[in-house]
Amino acid sequence: MSEIRRDPLSGSYVIIAKNRANRPNEFEPGSVRRADRPCPFCAGNEEETPLPIAVYPLVDQTSNNKIWRVRVVPNKYPAVESNDDVVVENRCTPDTIAATGSHEVIIESPEHVVSFAELQPDLARLAFRAYRDRLQALSRIPEIKYAQVFKNAGAAAGASLAHVHSQLITLPYVPTQVQTELTNCRRFYESEAAGNCLLCAMRDEELAAEIRLVAATPKFAAFCPFASRFPYETWIVPRKHASNFETTSDDALNELSQLVQNVIARIEQALDRPAYNYLLHTAPFHEAPRSDFDWHFEVFPRLAGTAGFEWATGSFINQTPPEEAAAVLRDTRA
Amino acid sequence: MSEIRRDPLSGSYVIIAKNRANRPNEFEPGSVRRADRPCPFCAGNEEETPLPIAVYPLVDQTSNNKIWRVRVVPNKYPAVESNDDVVVENRCTPDTIAATGSHEVIIESPEHVVSFAELQPDLARLAFRAYRDRLQALSRIPEIKYAQVFKNAGAAAGASLAHVHSQLITLPYVPTQVQTELTNCRRFYESEAAGNCLLCAMRDEELAAEIRLVAATPKFAAFCPFASRFPYETWIVPRKHASNFETTSDDALNELSQLVQNVIARIEQALDRPAYNYLLHTAPFHEAPRSDFDWHFEVFPRLAGTAGFEWATGSFINQTPPEEAAAVLRDTRA
Repeated sequence: MSEIRRDPLSGSYVIIAKNRANRPNEFEPGSVRRADRPCPFCAGNEEETPLPIAVYPLVDQTSNNKIWRVRVVPNKYPAVESNDDVVVENRCTPDTIAATGSHEVIIESPEHVVSFAELQPDLARLAFRAYRDRLQALSRIPEIKYAQVFKNAGAAAGASLAHVHSQLITLPYVPTQVQTELTNCRRFYESEAAGNCLLCAMRDEELAAEIRLVAATPKFAAFCPFASRFPYETWIVPRKHASNFETTSDDALNELSQLVQNVIARIEQALDRPAYNYLLHTAPFHEAPRSDFDWHFEVFPRLAGTAGFEWATGSFINQTPPEEAAAVLRDTRA
Repeated sequence: MSEIRRDPLSGSYVIIAKNRANRPNEFEPGSVRRADRPCPFCAGNEEETPLPIAVYPLVDQTSNNKIWRVRVVPNKYPAVESNDDVVVENRCTPDTIAATGSHEVIIESPEHVVSFAELQPDLARLAFRAYRDRLQALSRIPEIKYAQVFKNAGAAAGASLAHVHSQLITLPYVPTQVQTELTNCRRFYESEAAGNCLLCAMRDEELAAEIRLVAATPKFAAFCPFASRFPYETWIVPRKHASNFETTSDDALNELSQLVQNVIARIEQALDRPAYNYLLHTAPFHEAPRSDFDWHFEVFPRLAGTAGFEWATGSFINQTPPEEAAAVLRDTRA
């Protein structure tokens, strides 16, 4: 049972989720896997997770579900749940919301693979199809305003299980971080005589300058952004304008999943397999396609923690200029 | 040599500070102090730090500086420097700024004390006077728009040295996090018929409800905010409206430093001496006192790292309701 509270001072939303404290953590301090617990995500241990929401390849659900390659299951220790309806009143915070929604886990391999980069390409492809398909399905539910897709890989990135997986949390609000991006994109669009998408402009600038470019494919560009918050932060942006990830074609997903695998392989090789996160920013549900915003992935290794300065200011201190980071990643064979 | 870049998408400021990568770190992974390095903050090792900016108690600077109790020195590996003047042009980011400024360290004891809670009260007092005095001095410099005071205690909070200390970084802009608070305070003020300060209203609500109150003194209240982002997050707010920390009286500083020591002692005892941060939010320089905003301290232990969801959304998942956290801290003898 969760509730969402909004801090009137910072505007931050906080999901108060007591039952998350009960989830097991197979990482000891220092990231060693605990051998005494079977992995709940491995094939054969399906009874350790709730019944699946989706199974890939799409097969007759009445047949044996052990032939799955990628599985989407409800998180056993969800941050938000479908039956939540608690609203707490507080004078200074009139907009507390019930944390109604779903928290899903995308299990990206039946075998105990830890690195997304080392997955067979067809499994990575299925994972990205699962993201797309789940967003498509969830986008039809009026109560859900946004669904956040993200990956925590390694203990320092917030993962509690090592088996390769991603997560999706649905929200009854548009997250402040996404709203800020949309506002800045709108402002940029209106400031350009011809009406230009900020992410398209950033991507084109990086493709032309090349100095911060990591890799480019026919449909996508991967680059370290000019104002990278973190060392080796890398964004992946489509080369053809597209605001809604849920409309991505199978073809594009195949190319995208390969590029993401490639970027992560470079990061893992250059930096000795660090913990990392990636996240998808896409347009909120229930809106017409936007001409001022592109969906994109943000990938960042977790090389240093955040300190008081970052929390205090919302600013970041980055020791590695993105020009250097991109050069290292470009020169890494993956 | 640093530069400040602003990401046009998120609006985040990033300080690109290459020389920070050279700073020593006395923590091994897992927070063990490295015995092979002398502590540069201990009395007797003054030559390990640059010449001081201020020394407490205020003594004749020509006399032996070894009688200091609290010292303010320039950070040897600064995020910003006074001689920076690099501006990098980028089409999508017109507002890149030179990272001109100063990065100061407040060394809070001549002996090798690690816990701020265990400092002699008169040293804690001097530390808070140093914050106030430095802010007062820096507030007269037109180029400096804000000075961020913060403490990183423990490796997981971003500290690289264990010896009790705080930091101050001056900025040529008002940080986005502070600006957001000011905007929300302004909005609240204007929405109240009588014109009320949001932080005063929050404080009064917590003092009346008591459920999230940790401690109260004649001049200050300490409480876990209703929408606590982190378990055991505690804010300290003055009971008499005050927007500018640099105008705080010696008397109030004495009471405040004792309360902060008390709150940290409770956190250290209840949670087995976790790493923690605290930070000061105060009104920006070069403005008249504000009737809609109070300066305040935010203290939060670093019990869990941030994961992809937090970075993606700007929202937080907190497993410990602040009502429970406050009850634990209230019941802890410190």
